[in-house]
Amino acid sequence: MRGEWGEVPYPLTVGHEIVGHVREAGAAVTRHAIGDRVGVGCMVDSCRECDNCKAGYEQYCLTGNVGTYASVDRDGTVTQGGYSTHVVVDEDFVLRVPESIPHQAAAPLLCAGITTYSPLAHWKAGPGKRVAVVGMGGLGHMGVKLAVAMGAEVTVLSQTLSKKDDGLAFGAKHYYATSDPATFETLRNTFDLIINTVSAPIDMKAYLSLLALDGTLVSVGAPPEPLPVGVFTLFSNRRSFAGSSIGGIAETQEMLDFCAEHGIAPEVEVIGADEVNEAYERVMKSDVRYRFVIDVDSLR
Amino acid sequence: MRGEWGEVPYPLTVGHEIVGHVREAGAAVTRHAIGDRVGVGCMVDSCRECDNCKAGYEQYCLTGNVGTYASVDRDGTVTQGGYSTHVVVDEDFVLRVPESIPHQAAAPLLCAGITTYSPLAHWKAGPGKRVAVVGMGGLGHMGVKLAVAMGAEVTVLSQTLSKKDDGLAFGAKHYYATSDPATFETLRNTFDLIINTVSAPIDMKAYLSLLALDGTLVSVGAPPEPLPVGVFTLFSNRRSFAGSSIGGIAETQEMLDFCAEHGIAPEVEVIGADEVNEAYERVMKSDVRYRFVIDVDSLR
Repeated sequence: MRGEWGEVPYPLTVGHEIVGHVREAGAAVTRHAIGDRVGVGCMVDSCRECDNCKAGYEQYCLTGNVGTYASVDRDGTVTQGGYSTHVVVDEDFVLRVPESIPHQAAAPLLCAGITTYSPLAHWKAGPGKRVAVVGMGGLGHMGVKLAVAMGAEVTVLSQTLSKKDDGLAFGAKHYYATSDPATFETLRNTFDLIINTVSAPIDMKAYLSLLALDGTLVSVGAPPEPLPVGVFTLFSNRRSFAGSSIGGIAETQEMLDFCAEHGIAPEVEVIGADEVNEAYERVMKSDVRYRFVIDVDSLR
Repeated sequence: MRGEWGEVPYPLTVGHEIVGHVREAGAAVTRHAIGDRVGVGCMVDSCRECDNCKAGYEQYCLTGNVGTYASVDRDGTVTQGGYSTHVVVDEDFVLRVPESIPHQAAAPLLCAGITTYSPLAHWKAGPGKRVAVVGMGGLGHMGVKLAVAMGAEVTVLSQTLSKKDDGLAFGAKHYYATSDPATFETLRNTFDLIINTVSAPIDMKAYLSLLALDGTLVSVGAPPEPLPVGVFTLFSNRRSFAGSSIGGIAETQEMLDFCAEHGIAPEVEVIGADEVNEAYERVMKSDVRYRFVIDVDSLR
């Protein structure tokens, strides 16, 4: 929004949680048919030739994937996103949206859903695993629902207890306020996995200290500035600090199917295009439960 | 030496790579007999009751293990280390030194050896794995020998090429100077595992960028100050930054037996106790190949 992650190639249409129907298809398209309900996430292409792409990790394409907006496409133009009545996307980067997931619930799965699903799956959240989710926003509340569905024991670490009832309703076993220093004493050496969804800087020593033996803190939030990490804190319990970025196309489809199977959907508030400025201010104040979705019919 | 890692309880006898013979044993001792050749590493006790101790990870004892020197022992006294003619150690923290490993070669295995063996084993260095060792000092040269013996393809990353012939003789396939910026271009996205043995701050962005998909940079070196880690660098290739501290007692025995089986020994220079000040200055100048060992007979 304000170039926090780098220079923005204006003019730009943003949006990378996109759901709609196939309206036109090229002659060579085989994966999707006109009328299908489909989704597009954070990327619309990748090199398809590097080791990572060949292994299904297009999000880690070694030459850089093509982002859904603000990236340079193969033809040299700047990609434009989903705050629009239509987008044109290569079929290989288009997902099938299961019948049982409503439009407005499917959209946030394509970034918030896969961004939390991928590290939870990779670091094996499941029965017997103690998982903490830092932040109860768009990503965090999906992280809670997904980790609970995977069978993990989930704790929410949020600034305040204002969303505690929601967190417990989503299946979390515990809910702590990070504004209370006692939280960090109580939970020392506790978690096998911490998913940090916060994009503001966090006190790495405090959060890493919450990890048990061989625990990993995975950041999916993206603070622009480097975070100071003390090696002695990593020495204790052989801790790791890792990053994870969205998911591959096959994994994103797997996540959509998982959500359909487990009846998981994000909590959303649907708005019209004329409400985006107000909505952005509310996001900044953490005043959204938990994701705004724009009805693009309001653009017509 | 200079309190870089915290306050030092003087007067202090240091030294935690200790080899000798059992001269006396308490009546209840069953694991070692008078005359046995034995070793003591970096710790001489732990709580033995926490989850980590019970799982054989005494080095990660949740109440803190008792260091071989400068720690407070159960009786309240400060532990004293191996720059001495004798030490008194609980039998459970005493290792068997295999016949085939000479005294002077066995000593450095008890810190430098286990400190590199443990992360190499944990992160599965072996055939098909590309492992880099940062630093060619006491720890680094053991890291190279151990990773080669485990079957990994090993690259040394050293400040200069001055020890290149040694590195290749130890079995490394590649040897690069980190003072040459081209090294970081050439080796981008290359390694599955990087073991950093350097205790001075390193440029985390440059080193993390050398990791391939799901690669981990493990620091066994202990820079006193926190290192700035950029989350975006971790996002690429889903990289991890981890710490590892020595090894458990059972694992240390496993490492000694592994070294005996594979004929691995550190390169050492044996000195008398009167030479330690000069030796320390040479260590600071990286002028030792690769570990000084003090013959404590020179103390008598």
